[in-house]
Amino acid sequence: MPVLGHTQYGKAEVRVVRIHRDTDPHEISDHNVSVALSGDFADTHLSGDNSRVLTTDAVKNTVNAFAKEAGDAVRTPELFGLELARHFTGVPQVERVRVRIETFPWRRLDHAGRPHPHAFARDGGHVRTTTVTRTADGGEWVTSGVKGLVVLKSTDSEFHTFYTERYTTLPETTDRVMATEVTSQWWHAEAPDDFDAAHARVIEAMTSAFAGHHSLALQQTLYEMGVQVLAAQPGIGEIRFSLPNKHHFLLDLSPFGLKNPGEVFHADDRPYGLIEGTVRRDDTPDPGLAFDPGQAW
Amino acid sequence: MPVLGHTQYGKAEVRVVRIHRDTDPHEISDHNVSVALSGDFADTHLSGDNSRVLTTDAVKNTVNAFAKEAGDAVRTPELFGLELARHFTGVPQVERVRVRIETFPWRRLDHAGRPHPHAFARDGGHVRTTTVTRTADGGEWVTSGVKGLVVLKSTDSEFHTFYTERYTTLPETTDRVMATEVTSQWWHAEAPDDFDAAHARVIEAMTSAFAGHHSLALQQTLYEMGVQVLAAQPGIGEIRFSLPNKHHFLLDLSPFGLKNPGEVFHADDRPYGLIEGTVRRDDTPDPGLAFDPGQAW
Amino acid sequence: MPVLGHTQYGKAEVRVVRIHRDTDPHEISDHNVSVALSGDFADTHLSGDNSRVLTTDAVKNTVNAFAKEAGDAVRTPELFGLELARHFTGVPQVERVRVRIETFPWRRLDHAGRPHPHAFARDGGHVRTTTVTRTADGGEWVTSGVKGLVVLKSTDSEFHTFYTERYTTLPETTDRVMATEVTSQWWHAEAPDDFDAAHARVIEAMTSAFAGHHSLALQQTLYEMGVQVLAAQPGIGEIRFSLPNKHHFLLDLSPFGLKNPGEVFHADDRPYGLIEGTVRRDDTPDPGLAFDPGQAW
Amino acid sequence: MPVLGHTQYGKAEVRVVRIHRDTDPHEISDHNVSVALSGDFADTHLSGDNSRVLTTDAVKNTVNAFAKEAGDAVRTPELFGLELARHFTGVPQVERVRVRIETFPWRRLDHAGRPHPHAFARDGGHVRTTTVTRTADGGEWVTSGVKGLVVLKSTDSEFHTFYTERYTTLPETTDRVMATEVTSQWWHAEAPDDFDAAHARVIEAMTSAFAGHHSLALQQTLYEMGVQVLAAQPGIGEIRFSLPNKHHFLLDLSPFGLKNPGEVFHADDRPYGLIEGTVRRDDTPDPGLAFDPGQAW
Repeated sequence: MPVLGHTQYGKAEVRVVRIHRDTDPHEISDHNVSVALSGDFADTHLSGDNSRVLTTDAVKNTVNAFAKEAGDAVRTPELFGLELARHFTGVPQVERVRVRIETFPWRRLDHAGRPHPHAFARDGGHVRTTTVTRTADGGEWVTSGVKGLVVLKSTDSEFHTFYTERYTTLPETTDRVMATEVTSQWWHAEAPDDFDAAHARVIEAMTSAFAGHHSLALQQTLYEMGVQVLAAQPGIGEIRFSLPNKHHFLLDLSPFGLKNPGEVFHADDRPYGLIEGTVRRDDTPDPGLAFDPGQAW
Repeated sequence: MPVLGHTQYGKAEVRVVRIHRDTDPHEISDHNVSVALSGDFADTHLSGDNSRVLTTDAVKNTVNAFAKEAGDAVRTPELFGLELARHFTGVPQVERVRVRIETFPWRRLDHAGRPHPHAFARDGGHVRTTTVTRTADGGEWVTSGVKGLVVLKSTDSEFHTFYTERYTTLPETTDRVMATEVTSQWWHAEAPDDFDAAHARVIEAMTSAFAGHHSLALQQTLYEMGVQVLAAQPGIGEIRFSLPNKHHFLLDLSPFGLKNPGEVFHADDRPYGLIEGTVRRDDTPDPGLAFDPGQAW
Repeated sequence: MPVLGHTQYGKAEVRVVRIHRDTDPHEISDHNVSVALSGDFADTHLSGDNSRVLTTDAVKNTVNAFAKEAGDAVRTPELFGLELARHFTGVPQVERVRVRIETFPWRRLDHAGRPHPHAFARDGGHVRTTTVTRTADGGEWVTSGVKGLVVLKSTDSEFHTFYTERYTTLPETTDRVMATEVTSQWWHAEAPDDFDAAHARVIEAMTSAFAGHHSLALQQTLYEMGVQVLAAQPGIGEIRFSLPNKHHFLLDLSPFGLKNPGEVFHADDRPYGLIEGTVRRDDTPDPGLAFDPGQAW
Repeated sequence: MPVLGHTQYGKAEVRVVRIHRDTDPHEISDHNVSVALSGDFADTHLSGDNSRVLTTDAVKNTVNAFAKEAGDAVRTPELFGLELARHFTGVPQVERVRVRIETFPWRRLDHAGRPHPHAFARDGGHVRTTTVTRTADGGEWVTSGVKGLVVLKSTDSEFHTFYTERYTTLPETTDRVMATEVTSQWWHAEAPDDFDAAHARVIEAMTSAFAGHHSLALQQTLYEMGVQVLAAQPGIGEIRFSLPNKHHFLLDLSPFGLKNPGEVFHADDRPYGLIEGTVRRDDTPDPGLAFDPGQAW
């Protein structure tokens, strides 16, 4: 007999922009907020009885209203997510909520040689991500993250002495271009005093590690990035990475009578290596629901 | 002290196309294959010792070679995935492999009023998806799925008598347009005799259920779709859905002196409701690793 | 001294969906409409005097209202575009209007073995495109088109005896896979009686030509497709194609002891050949503004 | 009778990356190059005679080889494009070539508090674009450009006293958020001494104008941006803009008892206003083929 398993629902991708006009200069908080609720919602699935369903329209309204009501919390996605998560777990039939936020950074434009008080350009270097998970019994997990951060090192990367079998034809190299687009999330076992400063420190630690590390494999670089992040920010219990190896293939220019000593590369699209991994403290508790998407694929 | 947690790696998005030329007419198998391996790979992370690392380049080569070596299995993504998964768990240091395949359907073109033996058009109606997970000790899980299947019903959909609170402003409706883009995966507790026929039956069951069901909520439709799929294909133990509610908002044309009795809609992009859920048999075993992505976000 | 050159403005991507509920079964018209206006609009650029500016919001409202007011014309994008274009050239300060429409086809779903009267699936095989250009003095140009139509032939395609110079290393081939994603627009020197039937005939003619033609170059196939379209639809004066050569590279499987006689291919993303061309009747008049985007890049 | 009209062909999106390793620190040139050739190529269309066809594969090889052969020109896309264009017009049957380049900026990463000599992050703020058009008789046109530059001003933008008619319902506003994603191309009537410095000056002029201008319409801002660019860079004869009005709609929070004095906005996706226009010097010659795409749509 068919039965209902796990369910969750909510409003995804609420694009809310808050202009801070009472400051001089103006500032922008620019978020894409997705909320997923779980709880006592079986009736709507089984019989179409919606009497316990908080509409996804109301979820959207709440996100928008909280961009005003939550005061300064809207400036910091982790705090904004916590305000929202605490609100939604206060809805009686909600047992668990997951708030995911993409935050788009902006930089101030110059005019007449000086920073302008209310004009901005989007800083496309990366997107800041946040996930707050909360249960009705008070469990609370906050992760911060990043995506779209593309980095490249033009030397100091080797790859050789690997396992070989029937299908292995890759030549070894002691000097290659290594590039990746960092997607990462880290769980705050303890909340930092300042989530914004902590986020900046993590980005600095991971990019500095990427830059300074002499790499024998992207896997090794991943681990080193994790180690340096944990060192830089004591409250982080665990960090996860998904690092596509954005292959730069050295082009053979010899048919044209040209040498190519590590200079001209084809930046390929697909396929790509994909290296994923977790670095954690040995004395950190289990991350609980911090990374749990509710329904996995 | 930092320690290494779960890791996995492999080659993603190997775009392999197999032309079946020894048949008349020709046929096409068109796959996008991603492979993730887990196992005894800590050394490469910790010290850059790659001696156990099967290169992602070899993973790619294997996928391409199996498009020839696997014979007719390449025509059916579940069988192709099984061949690959069994191969990779045979690599000594691999403990677990996950093979994900996107398969792009093609339809035969006509020429001079007849089906042409070697010309095709891509059928953009949906993408067929497959995930095969296998462990070195012989555990094996196969899921099939679909994505990009956009469906709409122009009536027979209501939404009302929902929970209301401070942020609820949505009007009730007894007749709305309901549309979604189906992403779904179902786990074969028992393998069907014919994965291709089974896939067609599942698509037919879920679209027929979507069409015929008088809906009081997208949640209810989701459950009905799951029930009908389980009824149509006895070996399926569990099915998961992710259904964005692609909102079609009735436009207010009264400022222009026009009535709009459910005729003219704005198809909105964001935000959207997102309804996710699982339907399973009450007597089915636990799906094990069937839906486990390895590293969750 | 700076002066203002050509300008145009309007609302882009109005996503309007019309449900035809007064028919049994229901039908759907699904359009993405973009309108560009040119005319006596210099003041808004030069001094911010908007007194002649029809707001882009009003343009959007007009598109939405016409989805009701235009009656059955909304079913056929060429007719819908003509209604809109004639309206906008009636605004006194408008000298020229260009209406571009993307139309998304839907197919009817089955339920209980029969076509269902109000449930549909999006047919992702191609997008139908339309451009109507009109000037205030009554000039009128209608083009129809297609995009996203991916076709492939698995044999009957050669490419050899080409020009060679210093940078030419491509091997010749007498049997390759040829695939492209057709973008095309054709200008109706005379309007057909039935734009919908004419569109279907054009698609049939170009895909049949693609299928049946033994190709010595994608350029030759392009011309043949154009010739067959002109033969099938007498009112068409000119057709333009943009055909990316979606390369399928034969994989070298010999390192693995495998033969690959035209069977296993890598479907590459970038770079791609791009073949563009026009086929016209020798006695057709100049296409005037039919293909003129207003401001080119 | 069908005849062949304009044709062009080439290789699109050659993703070539040049590492400058002989400098300390390293530098990156990262280009996406597309080449379109026109000329005496009718035979391949009409009869499949390829004897005059320079293969698109050879076009790709040339781009890659020139990333080495062109020396320092590869650092500056306008110079790289000129080298390529002059080469291709030297192929006997080529009468006209258009080289389009997207150039991706990178910034240097820090490590241990200092700029690192060979590690970089992609600067996602904008893409630099270049088009070089050249004819076999020596005509030469260079445009530079930008795309993906998203800017926003949080005040100093009004929109009112516009034309009204039956479909106009937009309220007037004296204070709104104005945002756009700049796509622009400017033609160098005279080449600057330093294309890189000139590009930086143009970006600075247009963003400074956007910031400092009190706007009565996006059209007015467009013109002011053009005027300031022409003032900043004397050799530019003409500049073209395509400015989507990325609407930020003020949310009505009054149902929740909240005031919203220009603080909380919904960033909408579609539809959007689209404002396009040209600003040129009154004494500049005609731009000839500078902006001509060859085959228009």
